[in-house]
Amino acid sequence: MREFIVFARKAWTKPFNLNDLASAGRMDVIARCVSSALFISYAIRKDTNIYISLNGPPNPPVLLKFFGDRLRGVYYDERSVAGKINEALKKIDETEEKKEIEVSKGFLVSKQSFENFLKKKALERKIVYLHEEGKDIREIEFSGNEIFVVGDHKGLPKKTEVFLEKLGAEKVSLGPLSYLASHCIVIVHNELDRRGL
Amino acid sequence: MREFIVFARKAWTKPFNLNDLASAGRMDVIARCVSSALFISYAIRKDTNIYISLNGPPNPPVLLKFFGDRLRGVYYDERSVAGKINEALKKIDETEEKKEIEVSKGFLVSKQSFENFLKKKALERKIVYLHEEGKDIREIEFSGNEIFVVGDHKGLPKKTEVFLEKLGAEKVSLGPLSYLASHCIVIVHNELDRRGL
Repeated sequence: MREFIVFARKAWTKPFNLNDLASAGRMDVIARCVSSALFISYAIRKDTNIYISLNGPPNPPVLLKFFGDRLRGVYYDERSVAGKINEALKKIDETEEKKEIEVSKGFLVSKQSFENFLKKKALERKIVYLHEEGKDIREIEFSGNEIFVVGDHKGLPKKTEVFLEKLGAEKVSLGPLSYLASHCIVIVHNELDRRGL
Repeated sequence: MREFIVFARKAWTKPFNLNDLASAGRMDVIARCVSSALFISYAIRKDTNIYISLNGPPNPPVLLKFFGDRLRGVYYDERSVAGKINEALKKIDETEEKKEIEVSKGFLVSKQSFENFLKKKALERKIVYLHEEGKDIREIEFSGNEIFVVGDHKGLPKKTEVFLEKLGAEKVSLGPLSYLASHCIVIVHNELDRRGL
């Protein structure tokens, strides 16, 4: 199972206007990440999960979980993905409970923090942090049991980088340029596809 | 200069509703292709041009040309790119003339066909057709003087494939899976970035 987590620094944690994703803390960036993680031509990647940590106003953090093997009713355009995220934000806004909510099949939302989620993940998976200064992805061996950490267009805050370092995350680079978050996910997928992982 | 051309089989050739790109012959697919060709993190790829051949109803063909080195006023979310395309379709709809129109800086529209455009391109560039059955991109030498042909989600019509073959196009594959059009562009870019082309 391939796993990605995106740290969205400014993406809103309340419902937003589907006609203006950019103003909702660049929710369009997040929608494209989900789409890049889960879709190939005419199919969904059943072997992939993507998690999004929303850290923008007014009530951070919110954690979204998309499970490729059982996801239903999501299409790959920005508006469709953003519509699902909006559903999740409405549900989490209306509830007082702390527990995880299933928004629809294969799509969950909770108030869990990036740090808390990743600390648990680190017990079972190697953490790979996609970063321009890392080692070249083509030179690195993978087991297929990694979780790839992606920053959004604002990058990761310094304290989050320190946290990742303490967790033993390995920095991996994708090429000589700095790519958009969703494009990073495409490149990682292609590399793992080639290795049959 | 890197060049891409997308053959959009069903994408509309008249103005459409920005709140429903998918219904306009999957204009969202086209918008993502433009975005993937032209944007990296915090920058536009000045070394890249992308051309879109729209072949959907009601007045095909329409050719869009985006020139990275002088493009202005386009952002990388689907809605922004689609908004520019809509502007072009309004202008071409209103004119009786056959000549190319500059919609805004670095963005042109005309009634040229895919075949006509590519025939001329073939005189100066090698044509590479991205196709699952081609040779692996990592095994192929490039000069930096190619134009990459991408099919949309419907693929290329048979007669267009025959046309490409006659032009001497080389089939190139990107990996073991069939990727979304915009993802194909990301993977090609990454490969050429690594080679410094």
